[in-house]
Amino acid sequence: MHQHACPLRLDAGTRENARLRLLTVKGHVEGILRMLEDDTIYCVDVLKQTKAVAGALNKVGDLVLRSHLKDHVVTASERGDSDRIIEELMEVLKYR
Amino acid sequence: MHQHACPLRLDAGTRENARLRLLTVKGHVEGILRMLEDDTIYCVDVLKQTKAVAGALNKVGDLVLRSHLKDHVVTASERGDSDRIIEELMEVLKYR
Amino acid sequence: MHQHACPLRLDAGTRENARLRLLTVKGHVEGILRMLEDDTIYCVDVLKQTKAVAGALNKVGDLVLRSHLKDHVVTASERGDSDRIIEELMEVLKYR
Amino acid sequence: MHQHACPLRLDAGTRENARLRLLTVKGHVEGILRMLEDDTIYCVDVLKQTKAVAGALNKVGDLVLRSHLKDHVVTASERGDSDRIIEELMEVLKYR
Repeated sequence: MHQHACPLRLDAGTRENARLRLLTVKGHVEGILRMLEDDTIYCVDVLKQTKAVAGALNKVGDLVLRSHLKDHVVTASERGDSDRIIEELMEVLKYR
Repeated sequence: MHQHACPLRLDAGTRENARLRLLTVKGHVEGILRMLEDDTIYCVDVLKQTKAVAGALNKVGDLVLRSHLKDHVVTASERGDSDRIIEELMEVLKYR
Repeated sequence: MHQHACPLRLDAGTRENARLRLLTVKGHVEGILRMLEDDTIYCVDVLKQTKAVAGALNKVGDLVLRSHLKDHVVTASERGDSDRIIEELMEVLKYR
Repeated sequence: MHQHACPLRLDAGTRENARLRLLTVKGHVEGILRMLEDDTIYCVDVLKQTKAVAGALNKVGDLVLRSHLKDHVVTASERGDSDRIIEELMEVLKYR
C-alpha cells in the first residue's frame, strides 16, 4: 500500500459508486460461472461475457482515474509530490 | 445464445480450467469490494487491482479463444460454417 | 519469415487494400512529424494524433486478420497445420 | 487545436525525442509498404509488423503523456484550468 506524508484518499462518493459497479461486476462473474457449469455452452458466448466484464471493470477504472486526477494529480505540484504521482500514474496506465 | 445445426461446445477441460480461474477472479473482485469499504483507501491502489483483475479475465479469454480456435475455427471449412465463425470471431476480437 | 510446405499468402485484394491504408497511415505520421516541428504544439494534440494513427493501424490489422482467418485459419485442419496456425495467431493476438 | 489563455506547449526535449521516434515509425511503415508489394507475403508477417508499429506509436504516446503530466497536469490546480485538463486527458486515455 502507498504512503504519503498526508494520506491521499479515494473520495467517498466515487468509492461508493465504484463499489456498486463492482457488485454488478461480481454478479456478472457469477453469471459466467453458472454458464460454465453448462456442458453445452459455446466458446464465443463465454468470450462475449468475459469481454463485457473486462469492459465494466475498465469503466470502474475510469471512474477512479478521473477522481484521482481531480483530487490528487492536478494538485500534485501544490503538494510537492509530483514525481511520485507521475510515476505511479504512468505505471497504472501502461497497456491500459 | 448461438445455434449451429450441430452444436459447438466449449470442451470440458477448458470449461473447468476457465471456471477455476473465474472463481479466483471472483475472489479478487470481492477483495476489491472489501478495499472499497475502507475510507482511507488510495485511488491508485484500487486502479492497480482493477487492472490486475482485467488481466486475469483476459487470460480466461485467451484460454477459451485457444480452445475455440482448436475445436471450431480450424475445422470451420470442413464443417461449412466459415462465414459465421469468422464474423463472430472478428466481433469478439474487436478492441480486445 | 514464415515457411509452410505449401506457402500461405496474403490475398492480392487485401494486400492492395492494406497497402492503400498504410499509405494513408504514412501520410498521417508525416503530418505528426510536421506538427512536431512547431515549437508551440500542445501535448494533447500530439496524443490525439498518435492515438488516431494507432487506430488506423489496428484497422489494417483487422483487415489482414479477417483475410487470414478466411484463407488460412478455417482451412487449417484440411491442410494439417492447425497447431502452427493456432500458435502464431495466439501470439499475434496477445495484448492486441 | 487547443487554446489556453497562456499557451501550454510540449517541451522541446520531448518534442525532439518524439520526432526521432516517429521518424523510425515512418521508416517501419515504409518497410511494411515494401512487404506488401511482395505477392508471396504471409498474413501473419504483416500482422506482426503492424502490431510492432502500433507498439512503437504507443511508446511515443507514453513519452508525450509523461511530459504532459509533468508540465501541465500536476500544475493545473495552480493554473486554474483543472476541469479542461482532466476532460481532455480522460478523452485521450479512452481505449488506450
